[in-house]
Amino acid sequence: MDIGPYSFEEFLERASAFHGNPAPGLVIGGYMVELARSRLPQRTIFDAVVETPKCLPDAVQLLTPCSIGNGWMKVINWGLYALTLYDKYTGKGVRVWLDPERLEKWPEIRAWYLKLKPAREQDKDRLLNEMRRAGGSVCGVSPVRVKIEEFKKKSRGAIEICSVCKEGYPSNDGSVCRKCQQASPYMEIES
Amino acid sequence: MDIGPYSFEEFLERASAFHGNPAPGLVIGGYMVELARSRLPQRTIFDAVVETPKCLPDAVQLLTPCSIGNGWMKVINWGLYALTLYDKYTGKGVRVWLDPERLEKWPEIRAWYLKLKPAREQDKDRLLNEMRRAGGSVCGVSPVRVKIEEFKKKSRGAIEICSVCKEGYPSNDGSVCRKCQQASPYMEIES
Repeated sequence: MDIGPYSFEEFLERASAFHGNPAPGLVIGGYMVELARSRLPQRTIFDAVVETPKCLPDAVQLLTPCSIGNGWMKVINWGLYALTLYDKYTGKGVRVWLDPERLEKWPEIRAWYLKLKPAREQDKDRLLNEMRRAGGSVCGVSPVRVKIEEFKKKSRGAIEICSVCKEGYPSNDGSVCRKCQQASPYMEIES
Repeated sequence: MDIGPYSFEEFLERASAFHGNPAPGLVIGGYMVELARSRLPQRTIFDAVVETPKCLPDAVQLLTPCSIGNGWMKVINWGLYALTLYDKYTGKGVRVWLDPERLEKWPEIRAWYLKLKPAREQDKDRLLNEMRRAGGSVCGVSPVRVKIEEFKKKSRGAIEICSVCKEGYPSNDGSVCRKCQQASPYMEIES
């Protein structure tokens, strides 16, 4: 089954180029994106919410104008393999998720999704082949209304110069930037 | 000045295709990515941390193998226009940031970065032209050591079926999935 404007093989190539490898999560994610899009009225200007940071956001970035950097895609870490595309002005949209009840016919997809075997025991060719045949048929679909006001950008004020590191930072964050408010949880700066 | 493997014009085109428009933040971000990469030993296998969700993550996604979905790029919302590329095995890397002290010569970049005028008053051609001429010269660079253990993936356990919504979720999240633990902060599911 094609994935949006791409043949299955073309999508694998694009997935590899962007994501480093044609991960199964990206392939089934491609079908999920296209299923959600097909249920929106044509020419809807949509934003996206993805409920896991794993793989699925890259399917959205490959197939839609939404990206993490342009803010049209939000990522929520609920650990759910689900995404929503919705009209950015009204919030009306469609949520699509992998539905365990639809996986009985697809043992490799089921084993992958429910983590029933270690990655090294997966038969990746079989898994991708099942995904190619199943397409969006393994997904649940539901209309949703996204509370768009929750996602409105909250201004963090003017940009000031941090008195400690001399970088620009949002003034609403306090008297110094967030990095300088605490020992960095993620790195040591060497001098 | 070229941006990685692209001429300036080619990068604008790729930025438009991926991000929706050739945003200034993506253009200066491209120079920041290439500056950081140039300071890593050749053939370093690197991951990325970006300190703002605005624009800059897309420069990383366009120019490196790191993406939000493959987990090689992390986004921290510190509101700082800065990024770090680091050796994924040792944590040794390079942090690059826009340095206000280097912007005296570049009034449009300075006005954009410090939000000194409303977007509609920006002269975007002049801004992009300044960025093209300035390249990475407006950036600070510092060696850093990233605490890679902070970014280690923490397993959220086996996948179970949520007794409420019947979707698969990480068992460590509790007796039902995160979505069903609370009224969804972001949407109403219609039936």
